[in-house]
Amino acid sequence: METVAFLQQQPIFGGITDTAMQALIPLFRELDFPQGALIVREGDEGDSLFVICHGSVEVLKADGGTEDDDHLGSRIAVLQKGDVFGEMELIDMQRRSASIRALTPVNALALTNGDLFQIYQSDPPTFTLIVLNLARELSRRLRRLDEFVGHQLSASAATNGQ
Amino acid sequence: METVAFLQQQPIFGGITDTAMQALIPLFRELDFPQGALIVREGDEGDSLFVICHGSVEVLKADGGTEDDDHLGSRIAVLQKGDVFGEMELIDMQRRSASIRALTPVNALALTNGDLFQIYQSDPPTFTLIVLNLARELSRRLRRLDEFVGHQLSASAATNGQ
Repeated sequence: METVAFLQQQPIFGGITDTAMQALIPLFRELDFPQGALIVREGDEGDSLFVICHGSVEVLKADGGTEDDDHLGSRIAVLQKGDVFGEMELIDMQRRSASIRALTPVNALALTNGDLFQIYQSDPPTFTLIVLNLARELSRRLRRLDEFVGHQLSASAATNGQ
Repeated sequence: METVAFLQQQPIFGGITDTAMQALIPLFRELDFPQGALIVREGDEGDSLFVICHGSVEVLKADGGTEDDDHLGSRIAVLQKGDVFGEMELIDMQRRSASIRALTPVNALALTNGDLFQIYQSDPPTFTLIVLNLARELSRRLRRLDEFVGHQLSASAATNGQ
């Protein structure tokens, strides 16, 4: 089954056995978004994570200006095939931390909080592996942002003659 | 036992039962650092997370300048009693992402990767809870950094007249 192989190649499903993956597949919903579609809006409640199967999206973060559907904030990242978004809200139960807009037609697989809880109940080792993989992904992102912030602070200190 | 109550109040041990916590306590090593001590050096391999019991530390990130023991980089955060550091390396097996220096005398509890693996083997539900709590903590930090980066990008766009 093509989806099983694709998902197993993605970091958040790394290490999950074929059998466990076959059991997870029916939980995913396949979704299509046209180019320009707003998939996630910052500040909304969210109960799904998305894995991009085709296409790319931009991550937009409100920047203190006036936000409307034409200007949702500054672009802080572009995500592509295999990348995941929406997982922070599944982990920490907070509101959407950024908006996500389709840069091209996008095909994605969505997994809800309820689905994840179902995995927790039916297959605890697989649930643990998914949470560990998600934590690794968050850790990788934090490292990248730490680098960025370190350089920003350094540039700012240089500008201020410190 | 005072340590049990203290640790249970900290986010990364939230939800862990008294019995499970009693079993974890012997795994922790208690460490004391004098003011100014370099507890963690950026780029080193690390196999422990630390929970601060008393005192405070600064998080220093190399900023592209010449680093030595007097200048390890820009300060990107200050952590205090109850805060955790070093957990990213336990999660993603990469090198230390920043240096940590004691701003005051510091008393901390350390838990190694091997200890965490022992919890995984002896008490899988507690292991899952710790990983979930760590992921939540990483998620909270990512949200704060996302805010910071959003505002930096916005300020930078304003400076460039965009």
